[in-house]
Amino acid sequence: MSKSRIPSATQSPRFSGIRTFMRLPYEPDSSQWPNTDVAVVGLPFDTAASFRPGARFGPSGIRDISTLLRPSNQFHKMNAFDKLRVVDIGDLTAIPGDIQRTFDNISTAYHDLAAVSVIPLGLGGDHSVSLGELRGLAAHHGPLSLIHFDAHCDTWDNYWGLKYTHGTIFRRACEEGLIIPDRSIQVGMRGTEYDPADLDASRSLGFEVLPTVDIVKMEAEAVARAVKSRVGQNPVFFTFDIDFFDPSQAPGTGTPEVGGLTSLFGLEIVRRLGGLNFVGFDVVEVLPAHDVAQITQLLAATLAFEFVALAALGPPVWNSASATAK
Amino acid sequence: MSKSRIPSATQSPRFSGIRTFMRLPYEPDSSQWPNTDVAVVGLPFDTAASFRPGARFGPSGIRDISTLLRPSNQFHKMNAFDKLRVVDIGDLTAIPGDIQRTFDNISTAYHDLAAVSVIPLGLGGDHSVSLGELRGLAAHHGPLSLIHFDAHCDTWDNYWGLKYTHGTIFRRACEEGLIIPDRSIQVGMRGTEYDPADLDASRSLGFEVLPTVDIVKMEAEAVARAVKSRVGQNPVFFTFDIDFFDPSQAPGTGTPEVGGLTSLFGLEIVRRLGGLNFVGFDVVEVLPAHDVAQITQLLAATLAFEFVALAALGPPVWNSASATAK
Amino acid sequence: MSKSRIPSATQSPRFSGIRTFMRLPYEPDSSQWPNTDVAVVGLPFDTAASFRPGARFGPSGIRDISTLLRPSNQFHKMNAFDKLRVVDIGDLTAIPGDIQRTFDNISTAYHDLAAVSVIPLGLGGDHSVSLGELRGLAAHHGPLSLIHFDAHCDTWDNYWGLKYTHGTIFRRACEEGLIIPDRSIQVGMRGTEYDPADLDASRSLGFEVLPTVDIVKMEAEAVARAVKSRVGQNPVFFTFDIDFFDPSQAPGTGTPEVGGLTSLFGLEIVRRLGGLNFVGFDVVEVLPAHDVAQITQLLAATLAFEFVALAALGPPVWNSASATAK
Amino acid sequence: MSKSRIPSATQSPRFSGIRTFMRLPYEPDSSQWPNTDVAVVGLPFDTAASFRPGARFGPSGIRDISTLLRPSNQFHKMNAFDKLRVVDIGDLTAIPGDIQRTFDNISTAYHDLAAVSVIPLGLGGDHSVSLGELRGLAAHHGPLSLIHFDAHCDTWDNYWGLKYTHGTIFRRACEEGLIIPDRSIQVGMRGTEYDPADLDASRSLGFEVLPTVDIVKMEAEAVARAVKSRVGQNPVFFTFDIDFFDPSQAPGTGTPEVGGLTSLFGLEIVRRLGGLNFVGFDVVEVLPAHDVAQITQLLAATLAFEFVALAALGPPVWNSASATAK
Amino acid sequence: MSKSRIPSATQSPRFSGIRTFMRLPYEPDSSQWPNTDVAVVGLPFDTAASFRPGARFGPSGIRDISTLLRPSNQFHKMNAFDKLRVVDIGDLTAIPGDIQRTFDNISTAYHDLAAVSVIPLGLGGDHSVSLGELRGLAAHHGPLSLIHFDAHCDTWDNYWGLKYTHGTIFRRACEEGLIIPDRSIQVGMRGTEYDPADLDASRSLGFEVLPTVDIVKMEAEAVARAVKSRVGQNPVFFTFDIDFFDPSQAPGTGTPEVGGLTSLFGLEIVRRLGGLNFVGFDVVEVLPAHDVAQITQLLAATLAFEFVALAALGPPVWNSASATAK
Amino acid sequence: MSKSRIPSATQSPRFSGIRTFMRLPYEPDSSQWPNTDVAVVGLPFDTAASFRPGARFGPSGIRDISTLLRPSNQFHKMNAFDKLRVVDIGDLTAIPGDIQRTFDNISTAYHDLAAVSVIPLGLGGDHSVSLGELRGLAAHHGPLSLIHFDAHCDTWDNYWGLKYTHGTIFRRACEEGLIIPDRSIQVGMRGTEYDPADLDASRSLGFEVLPTVDIVKMEAEAVARAVKSRVGQNPVFFTFDIDFFDPSQAPGTGTPEVGGLTSLFGLEIVRRLGGLNFVGFDVVEVLPAHDVAQITQLLAATLAFEFVALAALGPPVWNSASATAK
Repeated sequence: MSKSRIPSATQSPRFSGIRTFMRLPYEPDSSQWPNTDVAVVGLPFDTAASFRPGARFGPSGIRDISTLLRPSNQFHKMNAFDKLRVVDIGDLTAIPGDIQRTFDNISTAYHDLAAVSVIPLGLGGDHSVSLGELRGLAAHHGPLSLIHFDAHCDTWDNYWGLKYTHGTIFRRACEEGLIIPDRSIQVGMRGTEYDPADLDASRSLGFEVLPTVDIVKMEAEAVARAVKSRVGQNPVFFTFDIDFFDPSQAPGTGTPEVGGLTSLFGLEIVRRLGGLNFVGFDVVEVLPAHDVAQITQLLAATLAFEFVALAALGPPVWNSASATAK
Repeated sequence: MSKSRIPSATQSPRFSGIRTFMRLPYEPDSSQWPNTDVAVVGLPFDTAASFRPGARFGPSGIRDISTLLRPSNQFHKMNAFDKLRVVDIGDLTAIPGDIQRTFDNISTAYHDLAAVSVIPLGLGGDHSVSLGELRGLAAHHGPLSLIHFDAHCDTWDNYWGLKYTHGTIFRRACEEGLIIPDRSIQVGMRGTEYDPADLDASRSLGFEVLPTVDIVKMEAEAVARAVKSRVGQNPVFFTFDIDFFDPSQAPGTGTPEVGGLTSLFGLEIVRRLGGLNFVGFDVVEVLPAHDVAQITQLLAATLAFEFVALAALGPPVWNSASATAK
Repeated sequence: MSKSRIPSATQSPRFSGIRTFMRLPYEPDSSQWPNTDVAVVGLPFDTAASFRPGARFGPSGIRDISTLLRPSNQFHKMNAFDKLRVVDIGDLTAIPGDIQRTFDNISTAYHDLAAVSVIPLGLGGDHSVSLGELRGLAAHHGPLSLIHFDAHCDTWDNYWGLKYTHGTIFRRACEEGLIIPDRSIQVGMRGTEYDPADLDASRSLGFEVLPTVDIVKMEAEAVARAVKSRVGQNPVFFTFDIDFFDPSQAPGTGTPEVGGLTSLFGLEIVRRLGGLNFVGFDVVEVLPAHDVAQITQLLAATLAFEFVALAALGPPVWNSASATAK
Repeated sequence: MSKSRIPSATQSPRFSGIRTFMRLPYEPDSSQWPNTDVAVVGLPFDTAASFRPGARFGPSGIRDISTLLRPSNQFHKMNAFDKLRVVDIGDLTAIPGDIQRTFDNISTAYHDLAAVSVIPLGLGGDHSVSLGELRGLAAHHGPLSLIHFDAHCDTWDNYWGLKYTHGTIFRRACEEGLIIPDRSIQVGMRGTEYDPADLDASRSLGFEVLPTVDIVKMEAEAVARAVKSRVGQNPVFFTFDIDFFDPSQAPGTGTPEVGGLTSLFGLEIVRRLGGLNFVGFDVVEVLPAHDVAQITQLLAATLAFEFVALAALGPPVWNSASATAK
Repeated sequence: MSKSRIPSATQSPRFSGIRTFMRLPYEPDSSQWPNTDVAVVGLPFDTAASFRPGARFGPSGIRDISTLLRPSNQFHKMNAFDKLRVVDIGDLTAIPGDIQRTFDNISTAYHDLAAVSVIPLGLGGDHSVSLGELRGLAAHHGPLSLIHFDAHCDTWDNYWGLKYTHGTIFRRACEEGLIIPDRSIQVGMRGTEYDPADLDASRSLGFEVLPTVDIVKMEAEAVARAVKSRVGQNPVFFTFDIDFFDPSQAPGTGTPEVGGLTSLFGLEIVRRLGGLNFVGFDVVEVLPAHDVAQITQLLAATLAFEFVALAALGPPVWNSASATAK
Repeated sequence: MSKSRIPSATQSPRFSGIRTFMRLPYEPDSSQWPNTDVAVVGLPFDTAASFRPGARFGPSGIRDISTLLRPSNQFHKMNAFDKLRVVDIGDLTAIPGDIQRTFDNISTAYHDLAAVSVIPLGLGGDHSVSLGELRGLAAHHGPLSLIHFDAHCDTWDNYWGLKYTHGTIFRRACEEGLIIPDRSIQVGMRGTEYDPADLDASRSLGFEVLPTVDIVKMEAEAVARAVKSRVGQNPVFFTFDIDFFDPSQAPGTGTPEVGGLTSLFGLEIVRRLGGLNFVGFDVVEVLPAHDVAQITQLLAATLAFEFVALAALGPPVWNSASATAK
């Protein structure tokens, strides 16, 4: 029997019903979280965007089109929702213009979720939300490995004198000791830069950086191997900025860069990351106002769907411990 | 204290949270309905459309933008959600291609709601859903008065030999004895017709018909008086096809007609219909795929908001009876 | 029996079929024109636009949504397609960049149509096409009265040294003796100008000019009376630039001006112009690429529909002569 | 001399004229069909869609942008319209909500076309129309091989208890003996599923299934070889669901799946399928309301254009028989 | 000779050239400001929006379509650009997420402009920018009268504990003594509210409030009279939130309210406000990402154009002083 | 120190400021050009388009989104704006409907730029503008090599009897002796044709033609080698029609062809063309009205950005001569 109560599409048409992620149960009540394996959570914040805002509507947009998804995963030949209990806990409170209060709200909730062994799956929101997520998770798990798919390193020092923006948060995460850069990897960087040494600056922080021009010459399997060998069995947070993809695949984003990869190639990598010790996920920078035919939102929803499979494929030991505990 | 738990927009930003109507509590459990005054219900059916389909996404679209609405009504100087308990019960199951089964689902639910003195407020869906609604309500209340705002009479006999389409349902409702045409009124008719006698055909069924060309010469107050004197204190169902409005006000609909009225004028009429004995409402024919900047959806959501006020302003006797019963 | 074979919408759904205007018969063969009363003709030219081009797609766009129209006219309680034989003769050949050759193509065809007593109903195209139309019609009928609904007078002298643009053609028409300005009227002018005396320049040519700021204080009936008394029983060409309407009503146009009138008000005027001696019509400046939900195209199609009614309501003598001749 | 009268784009601009497919002659009169090789036919039905409706506007949308196509095929160095007489016979009557009557209309017309050796080329419409097409063709030709490009197998058993939907028709076609599964192939499957065994279910029916994850590792030539060796010289129906392509290539569709192939790769396969014994084609699931810049419609039109080439490249014997017969 | 060098549209097509407002000279150098009468200035800030962000693109959007405007004013029969020297000084630096620094930048620049007798004409940005503008202007002129056209009073106390948002700034302006509420007026309020007493709260601060439901019964002339008699010859700041208009007229905005007025009616009021002592203007809350066919941006640009006329029509004394000084 | 004054994005947000290309200085004054290395110039002409017009808005559209670009080039690890002085000289005057006058304006300005050793970088406009550019450059440099990326050869003889259209200009350029076909190359051809021999006709003129079906089998490096070996150290003009790319990458164009290449692959070729003797560049056929989320415009802007790098990587001798001369 399925652990996650998703209405059957052959009984209730997918276009109907209240828009939770994949029509999963809505469970805002934290007392119910200990029964849960994965919690989908909206992070509707976009004050920290440097170009187009609008990612505050990312969570509702992703949920809306996620109803099109069916529960079974063709690549893994598995219905992950049978193996894990997945719920949608709604949105955390994001305060436009008040990034620290927003960070606190996110960090507190993520710590609470981690404390009861729930893996949070965040729907952004601009990329700054990841700093709040990392604070909450690292408070429970200690410093984490980071898998970071993105067109940008997000390790600039500041924008307009502001230390906390969507382009600076992974430098902050290093400074705050939330992540272990030399067990972390940044994948997909491309586009114009402020300085020819921008990528090197990220490497100086300790990150491995795999830019798009290198990836395009590799097989998806090889990229996946590089990622897996980098993070090993460390607890890992997987953050996915939708602008990793070419604008043709993901027009609905705030700082697009042409010359990106296809959704097929990106998914082929993601699907091969099973067996890692994931403690959290997010997909960020989805701007419905700039999307066309909801394709960016559908891509983000599909990534979230694949993340649930990765959670289900997590390291056997950790999983069975979880199984015992619940 | 408010009877309806709407999150405060000054605590939780309106752009956040799961998309129920106005972020009202989601209450699919019929055992909770007896505590309720008004139930918002989605009717995502569009098989019966004669031109553009897509109204199946009307309920989710209206809910999405309804989060912009604040709870208090400026015209009535009243927060109707303090007076009535209003919930969103989600969508009824609509089966594309199977209109009779869909009618049955709607009719059963509406009868159940009426039986526990809940006023259903339907979000369509193409206009055919109103026949299902009327069947359910008339089964409980007996034949009803109908207030019908629309560009079209929807009293044609058939389309392509089909008796049940969005353009024929009020003829069917007459034939089935669900409404009392001579205590009913159709408001806003305009546009091209199949036959010069189309409006007269509706009058022959017993309806009073107020076409747009006549309304535009009247004050909103006069239109409201005409409606109120027609229906008196009969139990009344108020059905509002969004194409009543000019396409500039409501582009997101299936059979638009140019030369319609403004949203301001339409709202001015609706707000003056307090004091009637409403037993149900719907707003139909909203097609998000053809909307721009969500303005049609916002107009439909605002109508639904005004309907809650009309419910709160309902006849004192009936209301206090209800108050006693609950 | 109907003279115009429009497929019955209750047999063949309106969304189906090849896109002629209102699904009228396609009749490119000029040998069949003597049997015809009104010929819908596309004029897909837009080289002469001074701001946004794209009106070359106006004819196909108007035809596409015209399928939504039903044949009977609610205001006149008449099916004009029963009284007149109306066909769609397709598009005339417009050569981008070669305005004189395009004028010649239009003028020749219009002369041919007039010669066999067919009233052409042109679908633009930028407004320059009207000069070609007037040349053809005046060659047969002599100088014409002009009814000109528009936000602009189109009587500037030149643009960038070019004498033939969509903003100069009615000055050219005066110079060429195609129209009788003092039996002609321009209705709806508004917006910013090149010189404070722009309207006066049009009046100096002999036109009566009714700007929007004056019209808005009048009843539709009064505007119609002003038009009718101006043109009398002269042969008259009715040209309608869709930017007469407010951009909210007609966003899909090339040089929009805010502060315009509603489609309801405009139609109310047009419907009251029956009984004039119309020898031709056009509706121009429809740009589908800038339209939303096809509302501009639907408005243009509806105007064309109303023009057919005006043709059917034309002076009894002329009409019966036509009836005899055919 | 060309057998198909397409207006020369160097005489008559491609943006002008009535919208038949590629501005081919419109030939609704079945008495003219015996002179014809390929008949383009619109199938504007979408009641059977499980998510977004709107494919009823697919035929008119594909026709509209098809005017951009030039007649000569760069890959085959051939103008197929010189070799074959191709006409557009308009739309068959599709009845919203009445799938069986629609099937009958399609099946009758397809049988009639096949009976006079015309190859029908259908423009959908949701994918359910293929069942009507197969019924008509199999009645003449006997059971057919099927080449099926799609993201989905469409071999589910039912949706909401309904046996006839766009997701179930190829199971029905097997049950009705219209196709020979073990001489048929399904190409391009991907995306989420209802059950991990969904693809196997299709294989159990006898189909060969080539999912996208396998195709992406192959050359186009190899995919074409697999298809050709599967169907041999059996009479074959080629059905192409536009959602075979990635949503970036074909956003205007009803049940998109991310992670699809490019239009270049898909076309490279299709162009290599010459020499088969094609008895019919369709391209389906095009929804203009969700398209952007008409790119989906242009892709569908280009597929139809390539289908004409495949028809011209058909087996010599059959073709010369046809040549003799006509 | 014209004081403002606008390229002649009859020499240089309006669609060409760098996008300053109306193609006015770009003059960022403050040393040139003393020669100037009116300075158009962009205020690209949107952190303080409570629903949709995106107004940071308002200034560039308004400038882009402003090229369509011609220099002469039809209502006033005047080319105001001949009377006043008008320049575009570009955008002030707005820092996303740092409202106080943004206020300081605006306030400093506005004080500098006022100090050299230049009237700033701000292009927003969310409405919070007006507080920065008022601080700068009041520092020079002392407390100002405010003419405030808007759907909302923007006098709420806080949002989510934040005192500075686009919904609270006029309460702050009162508290800071920047405006004289009892010589100020708020025009156009409508829509849903947080509390039935919201309008009264604004009145308690001293404002006169003219809601839309009252305005719709008045002539434009009467509204203008009410405004003029309220502010007298006080120095006045005119702030215009584009959501004053109905969403059909101005879809591209952040917190739309249905039931608003037309652009024609709004312009008719504005044009009648000549003769007041204007010291500054702004038009705010324009969100290009939600606009359609640029109609909202064109409406905002037209308002700015009318503001220049109002500046030219300012009180004779002040004007001639200015004339002497420059 | 940077030679080009681009505002720092970490001081002044990229979304702010007047829209010159990349916020470069606006320098219309030709007396300042001798100090310049590269001049960005708008060519807003679209009369010569054979299908969709609208490229007149290409220059302003490309400039608008170009503000998103950062100055440093990741591939070349170089900030080309430090090496070269780059300015935006605004738009040349294009006269709709008067192609020869427009050619003259372009040709004169390009000759003037070349005469003072400035490399012009044109933003189109339809492709006809390249003929004006080539005339001006060849007048100074003599016959040029041409690198031509495009879906079409643009070597047809005429359209509708017109010799000068966007599809015929490179045949004209050959006839006028402006280019050396046998040191020139056309890259990316695909799509439907008027005649099976269309590509051969281009080859007969002397061009090397690399169609898309061949390129897709090559590495980017190999395509670049083919281009470089073809043009050698001849002075070369690089013209890039955005429809070279697949419509998914560049929907905003006038004559799209499906089955094109990705932006990643195209950029990979362009970046490898360093070391050639470029005397001019353009990117053409960008139609903002058909773009989605500005992705086409961003791709065009990125190409222009890469062109600046190619200019900076030009042959050492020529460059140092330039350095000496200035």
